Amino acid sequence: MGKNQKTNHTDVNTLGEFGLIEHLTRNFALNNVSSIKGIGDDAAVLNANDEEVLLVSTDMLVEGIHFDPAYTPLKHLGYKSIVVNVSDIYAMNGTPTQVTVSIAISNRYSVEALDELYAGILLACEKYDVDLVGGDTTSCPKGMTISVTALGRAKQGQVSYRSGAQVGDVICLTGYLGAAYLGLQILEREKQIYLENPQIQPDLDNASYLIESILKPEAAKDSVDYFHKHGITPTSMIDVSDGLASELFHIAKQSNVGLYIEEVNLPIHQETQLKAISFNIDPLTCAMHGGEDYELLFTINPKDLEKVKYMPDVYMIGDIVEADQGLKLHTSGGNIKNLVAQGWQHFRDEKS
Amino acid sequence: MGKNQKTNHTDVNTLGEFGLIEHLTRNFALNNVSSIKGIGDDAAVLNANDEEVLLVSTDMLVEGIHFDPAYTPLKHLGYKSIVVNVSDIYAMNGTPTQVTVSIAISNRYSVEALDELYAGILLACEKYDVDLVGGDTTSCPKGMTISVTALGRAKQGQVSYRSGAQVGDVICLTGYLGAAYLGLQILEREKQIYLENPQIQPDLDNASYLIESILKPEAAKDSVDYFHKHGITPTSMIDVSDGLASELFHIAKQSNVGLYIEEVNLPIHQETQLKAISFNIDPLTCAMHGGEDYELLFTINPKDLEKVKYMPDVYMIGDIVEADQGLKLHTSGGNIKNLVAQGWQHFRDEKS
Repeated sequence: MGKNQKTNHTDVNTLGEFGLIEHLTRNFALNNVSSIKGIGDDAAVLNANDEEVLLVSTDMLVEGIHFDPAYTPLKHLGYKSIVVNVSDIYAMNGTPTQVTVSIAISNRYSVEALDELYAGILLACEKYDVDLVGGDTTSCPKGMTISVTALGRAKQGQVSYRSGAQVGDVICLTGYLGAAYLGLQILEREKQIYLENPQIQPDLDNASYLIESILKPEAAKDSVDYFHKHGITPTSMIDVSDGLASELFHIAKQSNVGLYIEEVNLPIHQETQLKAISFNIDPLTCAMHGGEDYELLFTINPKDLEKVKYMPDVYMIGDIVEADQGLKLHTSGGNIKNLVAQGWQHFRDEKS
Repeated sequence: MGKNQKTNHTDVNTLGEFGLIEHLTRNFALNNVSSIKGIGDDAAVLNANDEEVLLVSTDMLVEGIHFDPAYTPLKHLGYKSIVVNVSDIYAMNGTPTQVTVSIAISNRYSVEALDELYAGILLACEKYDVDLVGGDTTSCPKGMTISVTALGRAKQGQVSYRSGAQVGDVICLTGYLGAAYLGLQILEREKQIYLENPQIQPDLDNASYLIESILKPEAAKDSVDYFHKHGITPTSMIDVSDGLASELFHIAKQSNVGLYIEEVNLPIHQETQLKAISFNIDPLTCAMHGGEDYELLFTINPKDLEKVKYMPDVYMIGDIVEADQGLKLHTSGGNIKNLVAQGWQHFRDEKS
């Protein structure tokens, strides 16, 4: 036995989340005629009929990683679990139609707690016009895990992939960035204060906009409805879940282009600006790397610019350039910097 | 504060798994035109095109509940996670086409461990002709949770629901029952012996058939291929995941019929018979309540009986009768007993 080598143990963190997915799925191919696009975009694309394709996306929310039950109302959690999934369908220029919801729960959760969770799920299903059509309910040794799969439809030829950005396209966003990250910082701060001294009442600083951004985000339904109404197909699109910088890297890599972002054009809400400064964080960092904003990042052919201008919420933040020009940020101070992808670190230490 | 009532805490076990799902989803309706059938069958049924419907099913496997890493090779686990999901598609008389796989893993799992898991997933995808088209990969504080969603297609008008059994139909099974349950008992016994004395080598008693039944089950693809080739549509169908008795109750309830089962016709493998006796368990109990067999239970109009007879694996175990006759078992001893649903208890105590 002494001569046997110990089985290799490579920490998953060494690959990063995207690297790990690429590594694990490298041997899988698409063999079914109904599979149009598999892994690597916000949703998979499958054949449905002559007019439509089917979109499929799935996301998992894990207690202790994606949410902290200490400050996450279960109704908000249920709502959010649907929102983050339909957001992926919108990011393909699609319309969500159905969801399945699977939950693993420890016996710490009562029927009443689950009623709250499902009240939030119902609210989101009604808001986003999706039907709950299936799921699984099981126990688990500890905590809660929610796994949602969203199904949607898009018109044939009108799917926006991450790979379609062209040189000369304008880069747009459907709303503000960085608020969810700061909302999370506020909740974490108040939790620490409470743990150290349960007598002190939480000081939420009238920060309802920031806190709602993390606890009860909305998906950019109105923007996609606008696209459909006005016959606009973004040349590429992705939702901002891991942070703007990370999403820009996805677009640039998959479209094989470079890009140029104007810092002064980045939409950062005044409350986000002020709170970031009070936390001694650069507001730009919140916008670039905060994540969980669930706005849509998309690129538009200049011919569609006139229509896009009149969207209720749209911010033009830069341009697509040749790949060899790289990914650049023109700072408000007048400098040109290379963009850096950071994103959230999803793999943490096992807790006992 | 003293007058405030404590928030109610109703234990989820009081409702049972099926009761809990019914309770939580009671306020949800199907509003989309593309939603044909939602919760309550092996898979949801959605509109695809004039020839086909789309089938969607999802299942979660949780470490410590559905599998024990002490005796579950990860490659087998990956394989099984796909099998249990495609089995639900077959149970609708459909053909599985795509899967998504989401995993939450603690840092106890290395890249090499995940490679094993995905090798099993790949093997099953190849065996069952399904494409892996998406998923999510995240960390969790402890253990592993696997959530798979399977998509499939069925011909319009050829979907087998649980609700279609008619009086006079013949009740059939595609294979043996009870082996997976006994395989699990063997593995649990060996684990206990090992924990008490790690020097003792596992005594698996040449029980490879039983152990393989729990660790690496197969779905009844060949049976459904036979249905399609011979133009047979079972009047109702369900896969045996929770135990034959539990599935018979689903068919009877949703079809509003009674049924009559012949014990002597229940397919129980000789190894299952012998091992059950050595464990002092009635083989009938293993067959009726063991679960995880992943065979198909289906009902057939007598006109199709001639074709069904020549299926490679088929056992005719009873008949559909009027609802007021209830669910009866004609025992091999000549008695008539009422069937009792038992199934697996999925909600257990939270472990620290």
